[in-house]
Amino acid sequence: MTGVSLHRPLPLAEVPQWDLACDVAVVGFGAAGACAALAAREAGANVMLFERNAGSGGASGLSGGEIYVGGGSPVQRAAGFDDDVADFAAYLKAAGGPCVDVAKCDLYAREAVAHFAWLQAQGVPYRGNYLPGKHIEPTDDSTLIWSGSEAAAPYVDQARPAPRGHVVQHMGWGGGRTLMDRLEARVRAVGVDVRCNARVVSLVADGAAIVGLVVRMDNQLFHVRALGGVVLASGGFVMNEDMRRRYCPDTFRINDPIGDKDDGAGILMGMGAGGDAIHMEQFFTTCPWTIPESHAQGVFVNVAGQRFINEDCYHGRVSRTAVDQPGGRVYLLLDNARFQQPPDFARMTIAGTGDSWDEVEAELGMAAGTLSATMAVYNRHAADGHDPLFDKRPPMLVPLDQGPFVALELNFQTSYFSFFTLGGLATNTDGAVLDRGGAPVRGLYAAGRCTSGLPAWGHGYASGLSLADCTFFGRQAGAAAARHAAGHG
Amino acid sequence: MTGVSLHRPLPLAEVPQWDLACDVAVVGFGAAGACAALAAREAGANVMLFERNAGSGGASGLSGGEIYVGGGSPVQRAAGFDDDVADFAAYLKAAGGPCVDVAKCDLYAREAVAHFAWLQAQGVPYRGNYLPGKHIEPTDDSTLIWSGSEAAAPYVDQARPAPRGHVVQHMGWGGGRTLMDRLEARVRAVGVDVRCNARVVSLVADGAAIVGLVVRMDNQLFHVRALGGVVLASGGFVMNEDMRRRYCPDTFRINDPIGDKDDGAGILMGMGAGGDAIHMEQFFTTCPWTIPESHAQGVFVNVAGQRFINEDCYHGRVSRTAVDQPGGRVYLLLDNARFQQPPDFARMTIAGTGDSWDEVEAELGMAAGTLSATMAVYNRHAADGHDPLFDKRPPMLVPLDQGPFVALELNFQTSYFSFFTLGGLATNTDGAVLDRGGAPVRGLYAAGRCTSGLPAWGHGYASGLSLADCTFFGRQAGAAAARHAAGHG
Repeated sequence: MTGVSLHRPLPLAEVPQWDLACDVAVVGFGAAGACAALAAREAGANVMLFERNAGSGGASGLSGGEIYVGGGSPVQRAAGFDDDVADFAAYLKAAGGPCVDVAKCDLYAREAVAHFAWLQAQGVPYRGNYLPGKHIEPTDDSTLIWSGSEAAAPYVDQARPAPRGHVVQHMGWGGGRTLMDRLEARVRAVGVDVRCNARVVSLVADGAAIVGLVVRMDNQLFHVRALGGVVLASGGFVMNEDMRRRYCPDTFRINDPIGDKDDGAGILMGMGAGGDAIHMEQFFTTCPWTIPESHAQGVFVNVAGQRFINEDCYHGRVSRTAVDQPGGRVYLLLDNARFQQPPDFARMTIAGTGDSWDEVEAELGMAAGTLSATMAVYNRHAADGHDPLFDKRPPMLVPLDQGPFVALELNFQTSYFSFFTLGGLATNTDGAVLDRGGAPVRGLYAAGRCTSGLPAWGHGYASGLSLADCTFFGRQAGAAAARHAAGHG
Repeated sequence: MTGVSLHRPLPLAEVPQWDLACDVAVVGFGAAGACAALAAREAGANVMLFERNAGSGGASGLSGGEIYVGGGSPVQRAAGFDDDVADFAAYLKAAGGPCVDVAKCDLYAREAVAHFAWLQAQGVPYRGNYLPGKHIEPTDDSTLIWSGSEAAAPYVDQARPAPRGHVVQHMGWGGGRTLMDRLEARVRAVGVDVRCNARVVSLVADGAAIVGLVVRMDNQLFHVRALGGVVLASGGFVMNEDMRRRYCPDTFRINDPIGDKDDGAGILMGMGAGGDAIHMEQFFTTCPWTIPESHAQGVFVNVAGQRFINEDCYHGRVSRTAVDQPGGRVYLLLDNARFQQPPDFARMTIAGTGDSWDEVEAELGMAAGTLSATMAVYNRHAADGHDPLFDKRPPMLVPLDQGPFVALELNFQTSYFSFFTLGGLATNTDGAVLDRGGAPVRGLYAAGRCTSGLPAWGHGYASGLSLADCTFFGRQAGAAAARHAAGHG
């Protein structure tokens, strides 16, 4: 079911009987739900986990399995990177932009190294090595990569840069499935009662407090008591066009939602229970323009022939800023030495070529003196290692002054711009869902992309931020629900 | 009271007794509340209107008193403008951008001429003449002015342009107070029970339906029964820093909120009653850079020396796009023939001068070949009446190639960028507040800036759109509440 239609929780008085009971009920078996369940079990709670699909995964299972960890992880230290909590926190806060949740950044910056050890203790494997270069995901089974805009302006001036993308040991892209396999194995090993093919259709409220849920399994409704409450971990709303139109209409500029039935059901249930939803207009997007890696030394211009960002930023930050540009498309400018045919799935096309930038400019139908002047300024300063406009830095800053040249078109409607939503329920650092007054909704917790968390701002995204948020604040939510249950015991 | 703290309605069972009763209760005595009250009275309802201030006005009273009316008003026709409903509707929809409410645009486009007649029938005076030129508000008591981006790209290609700003007869700026004086006089004349110094602190709900409110007057709480329900017309949230931080953080780039205690109380009460709030990240802003009018022929560049919009758009659309630019400031480029000292209240400063654009570029600290190339391209094409980058058109498109030149700095933090919020409760064309499923919250209506309405999108604002929305959809809300009361009668 899509639409914008889930609503108020079922009042307790309308529950015919409790069919099932637990201390903590978790909704969704992605990384956030798995970690919530694990943390609740660690705290001694009886845990039920409901997943509407036939198995675990969610959007986490479709991901690269990369988790943003900093502050001095063993992998960072072994590779010679001297990251610390202060720099890590500063970066996280800068990445949150105007939407930042300072308390979440500070807590995660302090706890990330311990969180990484916890993930390893759950059986999540890491090879432990550092892979230099610019990668969307490692092409082998390496662990540590640069996965954000740490070394690029303005971040590099706000926090000492370090690579922080920690990738599960998995050969090639798509490590998220491996991550989920390990988390699922652990969830089952510690005795979480996992119910798949189980769609949660409603929360149950006793007054303003959430005390259970209603779940459809085998075409029957079951009323499930949850003494400590419910953890919503059911993902974002990228698959719900009605919600996107209402809350995040700018996503209609692009066409490739990524998610796994992320229809916003958890957000709607949370709002119906009194929770606030914030930063709902925020989204992540990227077009894989850094493949091959030589393209990362290219220059982006908009249809006016203007640069719009330092291209040494994270590919997603560049792509998100690209989608802000007028004209429905941008161009990636390259010389022949760097150009290779982009991967088919990117659906990027060659829009112009020429032996000089004047020729490219003319072939793109741009006015004389636009793109060519842009490249003249760029090349003159790149030769000196400077970018006076956007502060792009070496090694990505190189002159592109030896033709022939090529302009690749990234078209918002026809090129591959994947995206997912970042807005969601307001939560505190314990994962408690907050109402509009900032007070917790009793018995209601949430984590992952049904909340607004560490990756709060589309322009500040880095690979691994969402899974960091899912796994760490999933644990926080599960532990808090278990404590709440114990208080009832 | 500011903060993000108003909440669920008071349950009917907790109402000790009804101290007062009416058919329709209106909250707020700006233009939206006044028109809601008038329409409810027209429909035969007994109406109470509660205003927390000592008198009428709200943000409407601080405004220019300009109402966006198209489709062929008598004033338009007398001035020779052949506007029609289709063009008017097309413009309204384009102005709504990704946040557009198509049904509201279509209804208002059809009804605007009749609405203008209704306003006149309430005693709102209009001189009836057309004032050519580019004005933020008329400097005399003229009626019709160009008040949006109708004649500029891309709008001019989507709808045949016409001036649509209809200004109350009032000498000079600030006609909003005159508008409110006339509406207030009418409200009192038709027997609305107006209570000033009356702060509404809560709605009252019978189940999910709103049946009254709680109001503090003379330090006492009164419980007011409203048979047909409550119309919220209490303004936006520009004066509530907590709400801005949570819902509209980009407004912190600028510093001059305009409003009258617009603390979002109505939005919070509406959300607490189950209403949805949408497009909360949207805001209007403007810096009065078109004073003197000769400055409207200037060219804007960002700190990279790049143009970013066709400067013949509405001053607010230009200003809103300016605030999107990196670097915290933009520059308005002028030649000496056009330059005059800007008004003091604009707090714009001269950042650079020069006999050539190269000199201005250097004085602004920009890299050689940036601003100067921008102006070379601009001037070359302006001489031919074209703007290949942003489609700016004559008469605003003129070459600026005879020095000396000047660059005025519009600094987001220190120049005068006034702003107010545009997001708010979701309502249908009857002014009924909608829940997240799109169903009306029974007995709850809203209008004006506590809703998301015709001026849904900051980049598409035109002067008069907000008062059009307030007055027309205020009437809709009041009439619907009166019908709801009659259904109970």
